[in-house]
Amino acid sequence: MFHHLRRYLPILSWAGTYRRSYAISDLLAAVIVTIMLIPQSLAYALLAGLPAEMGLYASILPLAAYALFGTSRTLSVGPVAVVSLMTAAAVGQVAAPGTAQAVVAAILLAFLSGAFLVMAGLLRLGFLANFLSHPVISGFITASGILIAVSQLKHILGISGQGESLYAQLVAMAGQLPDTNLPTVVIGIGAMAFLLWSRTGLKKLLMGLGVGRDVAAIAAKAGPVVAVVVTILCAWWLDLGEKGVALVGDVPTGLPAPGLPDFGAVPWPDLVIPAVLIAIIGFVESVSVGHTLAAKRRQRIDPNQELIGLGAANLAAGVSSGFPVTGGFSRSVVNFDAGAQTQASSLLTAAGIALAAMFLTPFLAYLPKATLAATIIVAVLSLVDLSILGRAWRYSLSEFIAVTATLGVTLVLGVEAGVICGVAASLAMHLYKTSRPHIAVIGQVPGTEHFRNVERHRVLTRPHTLSVRVDESLYFANASYLEDCILSLVAERPELRHVVLMCTAVNEIDMSALEALEAINDNLRDQDIRLHLSEVKGPVMDTLEKTDFLSHLTGQVFLSQHQAVATINQWEDGDDKAGNRPASA
Amino acid sequence: MFHHLRRYLPILSWAGTYRRSYAISDLLAAVIVTIMLIPQSLAYALLAGLPAEMGLYASILPLAAYALFGTSRTLSVGPVAVVSLMTAAAVGQVAAPGTAQAVVAAILLAFLSGAFLVMAGLLRLGFLANFLSHPVISGFITASGILIAVSQLKHILGISGQGESLYAQLVAMAGQLPDTNLPTVVIGIGAMAFLLWSRTGLKKLLMGLGVGRDVAAIAAKAGPVVAVVVTILCAWWLDLGEKGVALVGDVPTGLPAPGLPDFGAVPWPDLVIPAVLIAIIGFVESVSVGHTLAAKRRQRIDPNQELIGLGAANLAAGVSSGFPVTGGFSRSVVNFDAGAQTQASSLLTAAGIALAAMFLTPFLAYLPKATLAATIIVAVLSLVDLSILGRAWRYSLSEFIAVTATLGVTLVLGVEAGVICGVAASLAMHLYKTSRPHIAVIGQVPGTEHFRNVERHRVLTRPHTLSVRVDESLYFANASYLEDCILSLVAERPELRHVVLMCTAVNEIDMSALEALEAINDNLRDQDIRLHLSEVKGPVMDTLEKTDFLSHLTGQVFLSQHQAVATINQWEDGDDKAGNRPASA
Repeated sequence: MFHHLRRYLPILSWAGTYRRSYAISDLLAAVIVTIMLIPQSLAYALLAGLPAEMGLYASILPLAAYALFGTSRTLSVGPVAVVSLMTAAAVGQVAAPGTAQAVVAAILLAFLSGAFLVMAGLLRLGFLANFLSHPVISGFITASGILIAVSQLKHILGISGQGESLYAQLVAMAGQLPDTNLPTVVIGIGAMAFLLWSRTGLKKLLMGLGVGRDVAAIAAKAGPVVAVVVTILCAWWLDLGEKGVALVGDVPTGLPAPGLPDFGAVPWPDLVIPAVLIAIIGFVESVSVGHTLAAKRRQRIDPNQELIGLGAANLAAGVSSGFPVTGGFSRSVVNFDAGAQTQASSLLTAAGIALAAMFLTPFLAYLPKATLAATIIVAVLSLVDLSILGRAWRYSLSEFIAVTATLGVTLVLGVEAGVICGVAASLAMHLYKTSRPHIAVIGQVPGTEHFRNVERHRVLTRPHTLSVRVDESLYFANASYLEDCILSLVAERPELRHVVLMCTAVNEIDMSALEALEAINDNLRDQDIRLHLSEVKGPVMDTLEKTDFLSHLTGQVFLSQHQAVATINQWEDGDDKAGNRPASA
Repeated sequence: MFHHLRRYLPILSWAGTYRRSYAISDLLAAVIVTIMLIPQSLAYALLAGLPAEMGLYASILPLAAYALFGTSRTLSVGPVAVVSLMTAAAVGQVAAPGTAQAVVAAILLAFLSGAFLVMAGLLRLGFLANFLSHPVISGFITASGILIAVSQLKHILGISGQGESLYAQLVAMAGQLPDTNLPTVVIGIGAMAFLLWSRTGLKKLLMGLGVGRDVAAIAAKAGPVVAVVVTILCAWWLDLGEKGVALVGDVPTGLPAPGLPDFGAVPWPDLVIPAVLIAIIGFVESVSVGHTLAAKRRQRIDPNQELIGLGAANLAAGVSSGFPVTGGFSRSVVNFDAGAQTQASSLLTAAGIALAAMFLTPFLAYLPKATLAATIIVAVLSLVDLSILGRAWRYSLSEFIAVTATLGVTLVLGVEAGVICGVAASLAMHLYKTSRPHIAVIGQVPGTEHFRNVERHRVLTRPHTLSVRVDESLYFANASYLEDCILSLVAERPELRHVVLMCTAVNEIDMSALEALEAINDNLRDQDIRLHLSEVKGPVMDTLEKTDFLSHLTGQVFLSQHQAVATINQWEDGDDKAGNRPASA
């Protein structure tokens, strides 16, 4: 009973043995993460096209929900760049940005993806995430980074630059360049320059001032907070709002009342597919961060329970006026590096953000949007990694096609089309490869029992026997390819009397492939050639024995390829002397 | 140049060496096929919900087009049952049955699927047909047979019995049972009984009358013509049209003017997906018939050129007021059995049907629709083969799921949903299986160099070494499964110092899997365990050598598993004595 509870409530696995030393570490980490999260949450709400306060709301209850249900001890959940971009795209399909409808759509999106994640977790569908291959994820993240950076440029330039597609945004921005607002550009570029410098320079500076290495590294992460505070002060002092600088404006104080908005206000069925895609991408990102961190401390995470944990976080975002969240890389790394030991750190962070939402919001009215845009652009630059193109190119053509398709389609047609196309491309490539398997004619390595490809090694063959190794499971997609290959190999060899199929790499033979084997067997029998099998694996043999194939087979099933060839040579050599041959079975 | 021409115009490969003996065989076959085709063409037009004469039109130019471009010497192209059913379904989505719009839609459908087939042939996409697995095809054909038989029942009963789905048709027919027309039922049941008897009894009767075996077998195929002639005479004599028997009615005499109808008359984009599905199913059916017949005479067909041949036939159907056609099983077998040697037989058949369209149509006015329905029902009964369910069940769960899904969805939701669902189900099943590969812990068979599964054989293992054989290529879908498996196997073995991955069945390692191997390697290194590979295939090794994985690998790549274990045992035994161990690379 308790065991079951522990499986679905991982918090029980550490809450009982919580130590005082953990509490200090967790509190310290929580303070650092809270300071980092405030500007980040506001920025990602802006990226998602939503009011700034929603970023704070999405960083309170969801953290608490994940702390209860998630299996990673150090993952920090909340709004992240890629998921916020996907939210913006999905919301944009059903509501105009900045409207009350857009807010409702974002909340429903969080709720729907939460429901989907919990369902997937209960059905133990975590393995589905494996179908997003590494090249597809890399291509998608890189393209998302580019899309995000471009979408924030308009805030740096102080122009509207609206556009559905990347191309439309670039065209709109180019047309509005003359309207650029100089004070906005100064703040935007200044903030970006400061943030870029703070990533490396701030740490060195602090260390130069005698701050310890670790403390300096963590304090350097506070760069965004410094940028926010300084630009708020500038905006207030210089009254920049009057000079055309876009400010965040009035942010409501206090916490939202829990509850769901009216589903009828938006065409919610249109949000189902986007919610599923957000759930999948969020899950993949979160699990990969979780795995990485857990491995560093010899802990493990359970992907199926992670679905439930993330689902709970998104349901929590849905009932507390937030928007879709997931486990973020940078925030989790900060939490980990700051020494967080358990999810108590996230619970404390949630409390910290709640305090901020209650008491700090009046100060945010003067925050320039350009500062938040600068925060986002600097953050997503690390996502853009075009080197994957080169690595995939060197690795194999199919990986390159998968990366390029994902990257290109995401940039041109958007995030949803990009993910779908990437998965489809990598599956199609995999199926294409397995549908044309490597089929090697093999011969015996002299003096050994080993058999190798005749084209790669010096090996022995005899004209009466063709030994073939198929480097793939036999299934419907390659069944007729196998048939064509074997029959044309046979057609080139007039003296042939035996074909041996070496099955070391055959992990499965399905009904379609069995049909093809029957056809090969029949065709060879008509030509007075016998078909043998060798090294058939246990599970495959079990399946063959359930059919009548073995009774039709003109030849035998040999335990090893060496035994097959030795036996056949004996038959044929005896045969040559006696002038007759063993009757076909 | 001529070689290229021959590839795209296979007629050139036999036309130059045509012999007089062929001409006699081909003419005889043509006469027999023509007699058989006239009722069949009319019946399939009825099945497709089209005017009877369209069946004749679809049996003239398409045959000539295939004769020019197809590679099978004996395949007979024209309207067939399953494709006619799919045509009815597709046309029903854009036009009411019996309207001029339905005629235009059917013609466009033929044209579109022809265009798609030719395009696929030029792009050499013939392999795509392989993704229709044997269970999916069987399930689909069986379900189609049932759908067709049910759709014709109303003609036998003389009621309207309209309905979109199978269920709706059954309900409608049940409600209209009191309206059954007795003379229609007599003709329908009588014709069915005669046709069923003629399949076996007629041949025996003729042989009893002294007719030779082969002639009797072929003459027995003329059963449908006898039924047609007899029922026409009855209907005329007894004036059955006045007694409520539905007759074919006036059929225009002569041939249609070549040309395409106005595409604007129907929403043709809605026909694109159905056209693609018709093309695929038609191609699969035709190629399987073509393969079977070619194999009997040691000829071969070229799937990619078959796409062009069938495409040309459908384009020809499109410009001559026909509807989608393909190579049919029963008609081709009759052509083959009647002795056809080349496609000259089809050219002569086309001429025969053209003559029929010019001179015989006045007699068809009195033909009862019930006769045609009886012809169809008797023909499709041979398609229904529910034994596939049992065979698939015994073979494997995944084959059974694929058959049942295809059969069930086709029956309930229709032919298009059925095909798509079948392909999706078998691909999903395949991917699911390969995403959770068989991973065996192996040990040495005593006294040999062979290694086998510890759970199936008595083998030797040592506590310091874990040997694992993965029975699948390593790719994105199973990369993290592999990681989980190996790490949990390692966690159970505290004395472990070496892991050997035996790669005999690994035909590919993609980038995602390589990433997983790197992660395994790193994780094991942290636990002071070395990772080795053995029996890596040439192509896989080529790929690994393009990356820096081998330089990170803590262990070695051994040529054989035996060599790996022997070397490690030597290290460890030396180690135990010396009290130290080789440094990790």
